[in-house]
Amino acid sequence: MKSDIPVTSLQRLPIYLNYLKSLPAEVVNISSRAVAHALAMGEVLVRKDLAYTPAQGRTRTGYVRVELIAAIEEYLGCNDVKNAAVFGAGELGSALLAYNGFKNYGINVAAAFDSNPAKIGKTVSGKPVYGVAEAKQRLCELGVRLAVICVPAAAAQGIADLLVDCGIKGILNFAPVLLTVSEGFNVRNIDLAANLAVISSMI
Amino acid sequence: MKSDIPVTSLQRLPIYLNYLKSLPAEVVNISSRAVAHALAMGEVLVRKDLAYTPAQGRTRTGYVRVELIAAIEEYLGCNDVKNAAVFGAGELGSALLAYNGFKNYGINVAAAFDSNPAKIGKTVSGKPVYGVAEAKQRLCELGVRLAVICVPAAAAQGIADLLVDCGIKGILNFAPVLLTVSEGFNVRNIDLAANLAVISSMI
Repeated sequence: MKSDIPVTSLQRLPIYLNYLKSLPAEVVNISSRAVAHALAMGEVLVRKDLAYTPAQGRTRTGYVRVELIAAIEEYLGCNDVKNAAVFGAGELGSALLAYNGFKNYGINVAAAFDSNPAKIGKTVSGKPVYGVAEAKQRLCELGVRLAVICVPAAAAQGIADLLVDCGIKGILNFAPVLLTVSEGFNVRNIDLAANLAVISSMI
Repeated sequence: MKSDIPVTSLQRLPIYLNYLKSLPAEVVNISSRAVAHALAMGEVLVRKDLAYTPAQGRTRTGYVRVELIAAIEEYLGCNDVKNAAVFGAGELGSALLAYNGFKNYGINVAAAFDSNPAKIGKTVSGKPVYGVAEAKQRLCELGVRLAVICVPAAAAQGIADLLVDCGIKGILNFAPVLLTVSEGFNVRNIDLAANLAVISSMI
């Protein structure tokens, strides 16, 4: 559905959204030039990115801010709630289960999965923790479409294979390994240590 | 020091590093073509990226794998230990304090800072939690050069200002806000919810 937009443009939409939402209520209209200036980005780039959304800019005044926010939210699917599951209820997994920011994007973290018998059957931040062995059945019951992998590196590929087998199409991977998935599956990798390392080597 | 390398190339070095380390010991030599193929990247891109490091490739055989790993680690400063601090000892901050992956890149998370009196003076995963009010003195004593911001969005800019004032040059920001810092400071933003939202809108 979003195959026409480059991933780099798609990645910038939440940045525009956060910025537009952060402005005081007095800001009724905003131009792509003003957005570009505030975020230190190129004006042409911002205009092109916003053109992928259903927002309609006007000559001179630019966009009506609340309309632009609504258009980006609509484009990102924030109003169409999707269920997600977290694999690995360790420290990072628990942090994500406690995190409230996902709902701003229409994502409901419905459950966690873990292989540790001491965690299975418990709840973390009110979310049930199921065994990995019952993943297929539970993911189906819960209508989960997205998964977040927070298991140790050595276990990550096994979980990715399981997710693909369960029909999960989108994976956010925090394990510091390169996951191999078939075409048609979307994986984003966030290596927390590597991100800090990049800054570290710049200073 | 690393001003000659594009940030996009710098960001890919940890990906090559993880891949090279994941290979079995039998793999003695590896070409940039083989790396490119395994990671589904362009061969020219990989070759250019690796050329920023001190690694020396050979015609036909390519790189000696352990030499290439050492060269990337040297370039990323993995052998030069830098102290880091986590601001905000909530769920995400605690997850980062418990995380072991930073040391692979020569980063030692030395302490946490929080404004909650109930947390100050305690330890999280063996790391001391200090009050934000004593940040300047403690950061100096500990020789901290990098900071990770895990405080709520509304408090993040205040913490960034404090860090700049304390002479911290590199910030990894998990708060979903755009931080304004003076030139010469390096900020990387990781909006966890936005990352999942990008996948969500692709499926």
